[in-house]
Amino acid sequence: MNLWLILKLLRFIMEKPTLPKGTRDFGPVVMAKRQFILNTIRSVFQLHGFQPLETPAMENLNTLTGKYGDEGDQLLFKILNSGNYLKDVDQLKLNTKDSRLIASEISEKGLRYDLTVPFARYVVMNRHEITLPFKRYQIQPVWRADRPQKGRYREFYQCDADAVGTDSLICEAEIVLVIKSAFKGLGIEDYTIKINHRGILAGIAELVEANEKESSLFVAIDKLDKIGEEKVKEELRTRNFAEQGLTTLFEILNFKGTTQEKIEFLTTRFAASEKGKKGLTDLSEVLDLLKGYGASQDHVEFDIALARGLSYYTGCIFEVKINNVAIGSVSGGGRYDNLTQAFGSKEKLSGVGISFGVDRLCDAMEELKLFSEEAQVSSTVLICHFDEESKRYGLGILQTLRDNGIASEIYPDSVKIQKQLDYANKKMIPYVIVIGSEEMKSGQLTIKNMKTGDQEKKSISEIISSIN
Amino acid sequence: MNLWLILKLLRFIMEKPTLPKGTRDFGPVVMAKRQFILNTIRSVFQLHGFQPLETPAMENLNTLTGKYGDEGDQLLFKILNSGNYLKDVDQLKLNTKDSRLIASEISEKGLRYDLTVPFARYVVMNRHEITLPFKRYQIQPVWRADRPQKGRYREFYQCDADAVGTDSLICEAEIVLVIKSAFKGLGIEDYTIKINHRGILAGIAELVEANEKESSLFVAIDKLDKIGEEKVKEELRTRNFAEQGLTTLFEILNFKGTTQEKIEFLTTRFAASEKGKKGLTDLSEVLDLLKGYGASQDHVEFDIALARGLSYYTGCIFEVKINNVAIGSVSGGGRYDNLTQAFGSKEKLSGVGISFGVDRLCDAMEELKLFSEEAQVSSTVLICHFDEESKRYGLGILQTLRDNGIASEIYPDSVKIQKQLDYANKKMIPYVIVIGSEEMKSGQLTIKNMKTGDQEKKSISEIISSIN
Repeated sequence: MNLWLILKLLRFIMEKPTLPKGTRDFGPVVMAKRQFILNTIRSVFQLHGFQPLETPAMENLNTLTGKYGDEGDQLLFKILNSGNYLKDVDQLKLNTKDSRLIASEISEKGLRYDLTVPFARYVVMNRHEITLPFKRYQIQPVWRADRPQKGRYREFYQCDADAVGTDSLICEAEIVLVIKSAFKGLGIEDYTIKINHRGILAGIAELVEANEKESSLFVAIDKLDKIGEEKVKEELRTRNFAEQGLTTLFEILNFKGTTQEKIEFLTTRFAASEKGKKGLTDLSEVLDLLKGYGASQDHVEFDIALARGLSYYTGCIFEVKINNVAIGSVSGGGRYDNLTQAFGSKEKLSGVGISFGVDRLCDAMEELKLFSEEAQVSSTVLICHFDEESKRYGLGILQTLRDNGIASEIYPDSVKIQKQLDYANKKMIPYVIVIGSEEMKSGQLTIKNMKTGDQEKKSISEIISSIN
Repeated sequence: MNLWLILKLLRFIMEKPTLPKGTRDFGPVVMAKRQFILNTIRSVFQLHGFQPLETPAMENLNTLTGKYGDEGDQLLFKILNSGNYLKDVDQLKLNTKDSRLIASEISEKGLRYDLTVPFARYVVMNRHEITLPFKRYQIQPVWRADRPQKGRYREFYQCDADAVGTDSLICEAEIVLVIKSAFKGLGIEDYTIKINHRGILAGIAELVEANEKESSLFVAIDKLDKIGEEKVKEELRTRNFAEQGLTTLFEILNFKGTTQEKIEFLTTRFAASEKGKKGLTDLSEVLDLLKGYGASQDHVEFDIALARGLSYYTGCIFEVKINNVAIGSVSGGGRYDNLTQAFGSKEKLSGVGISFGVDRLCDAMEELKLFSEEAQVSSTVLICHFDEESKRYGLGILQTLRDNGIASEIYPDSVKIQKQLDYANKKMIPYVIVIGSEEMKSGQLTIKNMKTGDQEKKSISEIISSIN
């Protein structure tokens, strides 16, 4: 019997349940933090005129497949059809034991892989009821059958906001405002919003004569942060980029200066590139619109090397990094030309979207110690008691606290006072009211601050006003 | 070519995507209502000391199967394993084309079917870190491969709160308070909280000599509301209940009177029934505790015929009905003896739980016209403009509104003013600020109430204070 079998047997004997790999429970302490992040982002979205949408966890597989590339299709979680799904499957196909051949017959549904495809599907299905421009936000989990590793899960939340049906660069400016407002709400101070434009990248591609190899160029540039200049050059050489082009490329990518200086530098270079010029004009206009809002350009950095991989972006692109934290980008997005193309829609719906990564935000805020103790979701007050009579007296006090919006509870069993205080400590309940015979007589209750240990006698109304 | 094929072909040609049956999108208008309900229930749970928990959508199938009876097992959505799941399946099993034989080999995970089993699993897995009593709430969707029909979906939200690890009847009293507080928050005034006790039902079972047939008795009683006395009697006769017993049964079930009168009536009947006496004592104590909280017994009704089907309840049981609305119960729960039994835990964890049905609550509130117009999640203000200059001026106004917490947007494109006003109307945005050259000169902005059509000139600070 090998070790693996022994372990499996042991686990069976112990009957201890487990979680599917790559998934997590969120207990009260973590939930408090996640709720703080999600609530902050949600109210920023709403403040900026985005409206909520929720789509089902399950989508038809023909909605999902072919939208995320071959690799994405492999990573879809598929749901088995109900009933005896094998009944009508061709025996010859079964004999091959190749699951790809029977997949479409035994499974018609899959789990949501991102929030963009369901959004596009929703727009196509409800096109006649939707008023354009349509600004929607969506905060829901997605599932990917990826190999789990640190910081990568099989179930994770996405927080997306998109404005579709308008080309106005006001939408781009508002993406920057949404990011700033969200980070302010979260208490994150040291971060950078990198901004670039696909037109600028296209202009660069023209300059290095990579017109036919644009996408390999963008993919390589995207890795610059991670693998460095030399490795990027090597990669491009294997893809037959000329040395001359590579020199030009890094002359541009390595240009240091303020945003204005970068724009001026590229303007001279893009004299002959329509795409490049359009990119620069758009970018300048977005920065100018921000001034119109009275917003500073703090945190905003024009990053010529920002590429955002192979995605469907066509205009401005964004990425947000928290500085001095070893965590990748926590937010990203950009403008795309045609949201509903994949569903055969003839109408071209351009839009801009932004997506926040809750898990990474949570990890970064943890590292920066940005969660206030008040972010915990426990009761504010626990009522303790010495006997049945004081417990009963406590019920009225409890109700008064709740009537005043103070989350409170009473220790439900009649146990030693120390056990009740232990409960408050473990649950990080900040205040305890102790009720004994004297308190019942005088109405002056003992309130104990569990952090400082300070103890005072106060009437219930004094307690309420001091807590509020 | 038959009709079905033609339809299928037509759908293909139109390429219009669809939703899996039994699932729904929630657009902005519905989301606003659902968010109002969920936020109300969430804050009531937190006010009463319940802490949030979230568990993954996917659970291992060995966590889920065997917990919901045979029918439940059939209704689990199962997820296909990744990779070539057919490779190692026995060919002979495949040849039978009986999917039950290979199910466990090609699928290891399923979608959450309710929130109780994942909660129990969480408690078992984290038993050492959990402080008892543990009060958790959980608001998440669940999935059931049920036949979809009006009001029954394959994906729907559950809102559960449970307090485990204590026998204290304070928990039962707080269930009643949570329900009252939630309904008050939702604005539902005419509703009934039916309360009964499994001990009372057991006592009745003893009286009608159904000791061995308790569960068929409870199942039949549970249907009384729907099928009436005669049909219930018929059902019980087929299950060999004696006429004498049936007479006794309906003498009890039909007893009319106040809660106090019902308790007195049953006290005499239960002279020889320990279980019945315990049920009555518990129930009286819960009602008495409510007095301790200063809570009235309005809405609370002792319903001797409330049985709550075949569930695992052992003590008090609850069910809430909204009166004068043709919708079943919108909330239900009760005390159970042993949350973690199904996972082989030796420790007996008793608890009380309550569950709210969001979909039914939403339908009922719609019928009762209880959603206020403010419940919609659109911007409060739209800024309209006549030209590029006034649009740009509007950006500063927009920022000022948002800085004051007023959800606002600007029409992003330069189009005719009528189109901008149409947008506000369709999105039900209540106020529009129109900016033209005169407004820019004077700083007195035109604000239009889209509901009344009233139009006024006001400074931005006047506008802000009138909206807030």
